[in-house]
Amino acid sequence: MTSLEIGKRYVALCKEGKFDECINALFAKDAVSVEAAAPPGQERTAKGIEAIHGKGKWWADNHTVHRAEVIGPYPHDDRFAVRFVFDITHKPSGTRITMDEVGLFTVKNDKIVREEFFYMPG
Amino acid sequence: MTSLEIGKRYVALCKEGKFDECINALFAKDAVSVEAAAPPGQERTAKGIEAIHGKGKWWADNHTVHRAEVIGPYPHDDRFAVRFVFDITHKPSGTRITMDEVGLFTVKNDKIVREEFFYMPG
Repeated sequence: MTSLEIGKRYVALCKEGKFDECINALFAKDAVSVEAAAPPGQERTAKGIEAIHGKGKWWADNHTVHRAEVIGPYPHDDRFAVRFVFDITHKPSGTRITMDEVGLFTVKNDKIVREEFFYMPG
Repeated sequence: MTSLEIGKRYVALCKEGKFDECINALFAKDAVSVEAAAPPGQERTAKGIEAIHGKGKWWADNHTVHRAEVIGPYPHDDRFAVRFVFDITHKPSGTRITMDEVGLFTVKNDKIVREEFFYMPG
């Protein structure tokens, strides 16, 4: 599959809220996920599909999602970008914010091997 | 300067329509610009600041801009992303389209050394 096809599946599964299914179907076992900045008490980089599932679980446990937009993909060779605009409340603090990010995904052998998130430091 | 600072200047100059000034101030002499797909009759890759000015001139000569949004920057280490949403008419064909892209910029020694544009093939 091309990065465009992988990107379309990624966006479709995210829009349906099927995040675990998305990771299982599209990510390589040794995929790496890198944040622009470390979330409180966490590392910037998660290595391996289990760690990426762990990030997703932490995120779901700690945020209420009021509105989610997942826009793209924007392909370029073996990579694609996705825009995320999430209106969320951080459960522990009760703070409601709009999360506005660009994700950059690298594809190798039909799997996502790297995801990198671009955003203004909070 | 950090990639965040360079990115802020890039976005500010683009919003003011100062594209040539932006290239002169922020790009390395040997910067490289890569499109997701080759524009008709052109290469995907432009090498060097003169070639990048040339792309800008070709673009300005061939498009009427009705509305332009330049959003960002979205930093991540030595790179930043920018979103572009341009409502344009391609002068030769008279076709009006919305151009929706993500630009990815790589910074080295306080200059942009690489720009890559991500978008759906037209």
